[in-house]
Amino acid sequence: MTRIKAVFFDLDNTLVDFMRFKRMCLEGSVEAMVDAGLKIERDKAMELLYKLYDKHGMEYKHIFDDFLKEVMDTPDPKILAAAIVAYRQRRVSFLEPYPHVIPTLLELMRRGVKLGIITDAPRLKAWIRLCTLKLHHFFKIVVTLDDTGKRKPSPEPFMLGLKIAGVNPEESLYVGDREEVDIAGAKAVGMKTCFAKYGGMKFEGKVEPDYIIDDIEDLLSIVK
Amino acid sequence: MTRIKAVFFDLDNTLVDFMRFKRMCLEGSVEAMVDAGLKIERDKAMELLYKLYDKHGMEYKHIFDDFLKEVMDTPDPKILAAAIVAYRQRRVSFLEPYPHVIPTLLELMRRGVKLGIITDAPRLKAWIRLCTLKLHHFFKIVVTLDDTGKRKPSPEPFMLGLKIAGVNPEESLYVGDREEVDIAGAKAVGMKTCFAKYGGMKFEGKVEPDYIIDDIEDLLSIVK
Repeated sequence: MTRIKAVFFDLDNTLVDFMRFKRMCLEGSVEAMVDAGLKIERDKAMELLYKLYDKHGMEYKHIFDDFLKEVMDTPDPKILAAAIVAYRQRRVSFLEPYPHVIPTLLELMRRGVKLGIITDAPRLKAWIRLCTLKLHHFFKIVVTLDDTGKRKPSPEPFMLGLKIAGVNPEESLYVGDREEVDIAGAKAVGMKTCFAKYGGMKFEGKVEPDYIIDDIEDLLSIVK
Repeated sequence: MTRIKAVFFDLDNTLVDFMRFKRMCLEGSVEAMVDAGLKIERDKAMELLYKLYDKHGMEYKHIFDDFLKEVMDTPDPKILAAAIVAYRQRRVSFLEPYPHVIPTLLELMRRGVKLGIITDAPRLKAWIRLCTLKLHHFFKIVVTLDDTGKRKPSPEPFMLGLKIAGVNPEESLYVGDREEVDIAGAKAVGMKTCFAKYGGMKFEGKVEPDYIIDDIEDLLSIVK
C-alpha cells in the first residue's frame, strides 16, 4: 500500500457540522422574532426558512427580508433586526468542528502528513469559516471556488490541491460527505477517497470510496 | 415648570458608548490579523484604520479590504477573514449600554414618561443596534434617517418624534451628545435639551442646553 502523504478535506459537513449550525442560527432567529412580536408557529417558521434556503442557496443573505415579506403585511424593522442580531450572535458562537477534528488533525501533522482543504465555497467564505473554527492555522493548502472557478467533481480543484502539496494523486486521500461530488471527483483524478458518514448524508453506494468512516479519528488507522 | 411627558434620546454615544465599542472591535481585528501573520505595529494599524473610517464614515463595510491593500502587496484572504471574524465576534458581544441606562429607562417608564429614539442612523442599523443592546422592547417611538430623509439638526426628525408621541415640544426633553446637532436641533423646535457629557464630546458652549448631565441617571432628578 502506498503511503498517504497528504490528506485533503471538504469543509462543510466534513470538518464542521454545517447543517446543525444553520439550524441553530435559524432557531435562534425564530425565537428572537417571536420575542420581538411576530405571531407564528415555530415549526412553520423553520419550514418556510428552509424552503427559502432551498430556493436561493444556503448562503442567501436576504432570507429574513424574504421571510417577513411572506408572513407579514408590512415587515417590521424591529422583527427583522431581532432575527439578524440573533443569527449573528449564534453565527460567531456555535460554529464548532465535529468531535475529534482537532486532535485528529494534530496527530496527522505529527505523523508528517500534509493537510489541505478543497471546497466549493468562495475564498473569503472559506477562510471566514476556518477562522471562526480557529482552524485557519492548520491549513496551508486551501483550494476554494475562486482558485479554479470550477466546482467538484471537476478535476481542477483536486489537481490544484495536489500541485500545491507536491504529491501524486495515489499518495493522497480526500475526505468528504458527498458521493457524487467529493468521492467521484477525487477518485477520477486518482486520489484515494474516504466517505465521511458522520456528515449526515446517507451512503448510497453510487460511487465506491476506499474508506468509510463514522468518526474523523478513524483516519488515524487509515493514514499510518 | 412644565412637566416632561416624553424623553427622546440620541442613540450612539448617548445610550451606547459607540466609540469605545468601535475601538474594541478594531483592536480585536488587529490582534487577529497579527495572529494570522500580518507584520505591523498595533498602534500604526489602529491609526490607519481610524483614518479609513474618517474618510469613509464609521459604518464603512470594506475597511479591512482597504486596510490590507495599503499594508500588503497581495492581501491575504486568511488575514482578511481573521479580521472580519474577530470584528464580528466583538460586535455581538461588546455592544453595551452605558452604566445606568437600563435602570434609568425603567424608572422613567414607571413615572409614566414616554421614551423615544431620534437618530440619524438608517432604520435597520438603528434597530440592529437596539436589538444587540436588548433595548428594542423599551422604545415604541424610533425615528431613523429613513423616516424623514433628514438628519439632525433639521427639524423633521424631532417633529416626527413629537407627533408620534403626541406631545408638545415644551413637554419633551431631548438627550444627546453633540451640541450643534442634537442640542441645536431639538432647541430649535422648542424641546427642552440635555447634553450628555459622559458621551465623550467636550461641552464647548456653542449652544446652551437646559441641562448638562454626567451620568444618564441624573435624568431622574430632571424629569420628576
